[in-house]
Amino acid sequence: MDEEQFKAASRDMTEYITNYITNIRDRRVLPEVEPGYLRPLLPDHAPDTPDEWSDVMADIERVIMPGVTHWHSPQFHAYYPTANTYPSILADMLSDAIGCIGFTWISSPACTELEVVMMDWLGELLGLPQQFLASSGGKGGGVIQGTASEASLVALLAAKTKMVNKLKEKKPDLLKDTITSKLIAYASDQAHSSVERAGLLAGVKMRQVVSNDEFAMRGPALRHAIQQDLKLGLIPFFEVLTMATSVCSFDNLRELGEVTQEFDLWLHVDAAYAGAAMVCEEYRYLMDGVELAQSFNFNPHKWLLVTFDCSAMWVKNANDLVDAFNVDPLYLKHDKQGLAPDYRHWQIPLGRRFRSLKLWFVMRLYGKQGFQAHIRKQIGLAHQFEDYVKADQRFELILPVTLGLVCFRLKKNNEVNEALLKNINSDGVMHLVPSKIRGTFFLRFCVCSELTETYDIEKSWQEVLKQTQRVLQQN
Amino acid sequence: MDEEQFKAASRDMTEYITNYITNIRDRRVLPEVEPGYLRPLLPDHAPDTPDEWSDVMADIERVIMPGVTHWHSPQFHAYYPTANTYPSILADMLSDAIGCIGFTWISSPACTELEVVMMDWLGELLGLPQQFLASSGGKGGGVIQGTASEASLVALLAAKTKMVNKLKEKKPDLLKDTITSKLIAYASDQAHSSVERAGLLAGVKMRQVVSNDEFAMRGPALRHAIQQDLKLGLIPFFEVLTMATSVCSFDNLRELGEVTQEFDLWLHVDAAYAGAAMVCEEYRYLMDGVELAQSFNFNPHKWLLVTFDCSAMWVKNANDLVDAFNVDPLYLKHDKQGLAPDYRHWQIPLGRRFRSLKLWFVMRLYGKQGFQAHIRKQIGLAHQFEDYVKADQRFELILPVTLGLVCFRLKKNNEVNEALLKNINSDGVMHLVPSKIRGTFFLRFCVCSELTETYDIEKSWQEVLKQTQRVLQQN
Repeated sequence: MDEEQFKAASRDMTEYITNYITNIRDRRVLPEVEPGYLRPLLPDHAPDTPDEWSDVMADIERVIMPGVTHWHSPQFHAYYPTANTYPSILADMLSDAIGCIGFTWISSPACTELEVVMMDWLGELLGLPQQFLASSGGKGGGVIQGTASEASLVALLAAKTKMVNKLKEKKPDLLKDTITSKLIAYASDQAHSSVERAGLLAGVKMRQVVSNDEFAMRGPALRHAIQQDLKLGLIPFFEVLTMATSVCSFDNLRELGEVTQEFDLWLHVDAAYAGAAMVCEEYRYLMDGVELAQSFNFNPHKWLLVTFDCSAMWVKNANDLVDAFNVDPLYLKHDKQGLAPDYRHWQIPLGRRFRSLKLWFVMRLYGKQGFQAHIRKQIGLAHQFEDYVKADQRFELILPVTLGLVCFRLKKNNEVNEALLKNINSDGVMHLVPSKIRGTFFLRFCVCSELTETYDIEKSWQEVLKQTQRVLQQN
Repeated sequence: MDEEQFKAASRDMTEYITNYITNIRDRRVLPEVEPGYLRPLLPDHAPDTPDEWSDVMADIERVIMPGVTHWHSPQFHAYYPTANTYPSILADMLSDAIGCIGFTWISSPACTELEVVMMDWLGELLGLPQQFLASSGGKGGGVIQGTASEASLVALLAAKTKMVNKLKEKKPDLLKDTITSKLIAYASDQAHSSVERAGLLAGVKMRQVVSNDEFAMRGPALRHAIQQDLKLGLIPFFEVLTMATSVCSFDNLRELGEVTQEFDLWLHVDAAYAGAAMVCEEYRYLMDGVELAQSFNFNPHKWLLVTFDCSAMWVKNANDLVDAFNVDPLYLKHDKQGLAPDYRHWQIPLGRRFRSLKLWFVMRLYGKQGFQAHIRKQIGLAHQFEDYVKADQRFELILPVTLGLVCFRLKKNNEVNEALLKNINSDGVMHLVPSKIRGTFFLRFCVCSELTETYDIEKSWQEVLKQTQRVLQQN
């Protein structure tokens, strides 16, 4: 494909994309295909000689779209949101074209340096303490990870190395394996599955601490767990605090921060979804105590209008990451080491894309006020749905709404609620996913798409009512 | 940014990109900036209200380009290549616009299913055995990872879980920690640093096996290491074989395959760079014995014209991955489980982009013959440079050229060669990185950019000659 062909193809794709987004309400949210639908639509082998671009374009609608779950439909209310914005697409085009692999400063200085500054801009927008920002001149700073799962794993591995080194310094005879076998990390029983997985991958014990009736983990519960484990000869070293669990509950950051300080644990804050709301001062109370954390992570690719993947992580002391990840061959060494971060030591992979361009474009083309307006509008829409639920005596809320998620159920047994969910998803007008806590099955309604308007919420509620009627007639 | 603004902005960006690529020879390969150059060029804070798109566009040349290392310049000969092609950019635009997170089949069936089929197409292009392909109907299949580092780590973690489970089945009283502390993995002393890092992250011992005089790891060396470790009571479980080390040497796949079978080790093939060459039958001898491996990985984003990140990994038995990574909360469960892969169990992160679109577009718009022509042309260009080196008695080769890399040095001491490298990189006309094996420092010249032509190689060689003259005058 030469440059003129690319220009024409780019026009085609741009046209397709704007049509797709503009008319996304016309599409069924959940596809109707069965597993295995796609293979028969394609040739058995890659072509020997090039296909025509027009055939590739035509195949998007023929092959791909029948099997797409439309995450940006205003009736997509599953999981938590993922972002999709025009400025992000433009930035990714540029990132692809520059096509640098920013594993060291020298491998593309702009790639590293823009990330350092953008993470400062973003941290400041959230109101993070100065210690987390590179501009403070201390040891702190931010880095873009792929996902919150990776951020949790990176924090856990750094905390593990730090604790092992500390104990070996005290008692040089101790074997690393002996220490590792006694390490124990903590998280709420409401923490994301990726936290349990981080423990699994890193080969350390992970204890689930029981959250309270509002599904929040509190200080005394953590202290109790730590004290029990200390008596057993274990070595507590790491705590993941969740800001917005699957039911949008919040662990108590100040309390857990104080307990982790008391027992010298690394406190990692997983604010994957909720972090974005910190751009609005009125939600900052949810992160009161954040200065007690060693690391903080949230996903701009969830609720802050930056296309996946862009997971923002800050640490107070970047040396802790470098100590855990540094394996340095000659071909990656360069003259300017130490003067700017070599981000390869801050992450699991070696290679990395120029993702800070997305942050830059999006922050500039929305501005702080644009972010605030987006968050406030979406929370308002969640309250609109919450009000519908509250006004209908057949339903109950699992928790009052804090951000953009409404957890609700029919005041019936789990089976009836499961049937309601199944009906909603089979109809394909909207998409929800469930959760189940302490035996209670419920539906999660999240305001996801940036396109969502008041009338979309109204439409979604009408669909809930329609399916409720069907289910209640049968049960 | 509304749809009309996006259309205009996309035209701007497309124009910028084609100009950038077309005129990339006019730019200095390595930037001249010093660490910290970028911050003063930007405001201290994110804007409160949106900036103009025209200002964002203008800032690419003002802020970004002065600090870009131009990986796609035909005079960029550092590391190994990374791809940059128009079809990839188009596919990424679509991927961003669809913006689905394909962690389960239901979260976007097309995202999972296209990946399954594309990995079959690609595996077939490489001549991988049927057992690695999903189309065989067995337990094998492919998955797109972010990087080869992640693929090595995923394979290692799967092998670790498999060995722990096997031993615990035999002796249920054995503690997992006891087994883990005895596990030992192997790789050549020429393996990529990410392999050592995988051992570090997974908390298992990793032994470097000494390669031979051609920097290849051979069967007897591995057998000897395993036997020694067994005597010490250790548990050998995993071997990473490198196809194309930093000097482009090749471990002996058939020999290592036989040894790993004999001792029941998981054999992972890391062919990050070299894998692409397997599209040409004449290079398949380099992977003779691949049917003995449990997993195979290479990076289409290196040498097969797919933009980063796209690391292709195949396994013979996907259950081994799922066993290591499966942590399943209710909100990720769905009706169709087991009928198609849920790729979240095949990787470190939970979320994933629609990266198979890139593979699809690139395979269709190049075709098998396009791939072969690209690989053969680039290897030809490497031989052109090799011939220059051979014809000049002042130089020596470290190894004969097999693929696109030429490792060479002046027949002088390390200091002189270091000075030569430094001069070349300071001049900025071309970019090389060094390596050092067994005390010998040398220069690595890799044919990287797809744009590279015969006259570019000639130009690069002239630059080497010019800098050689300078260095030899001073030394």
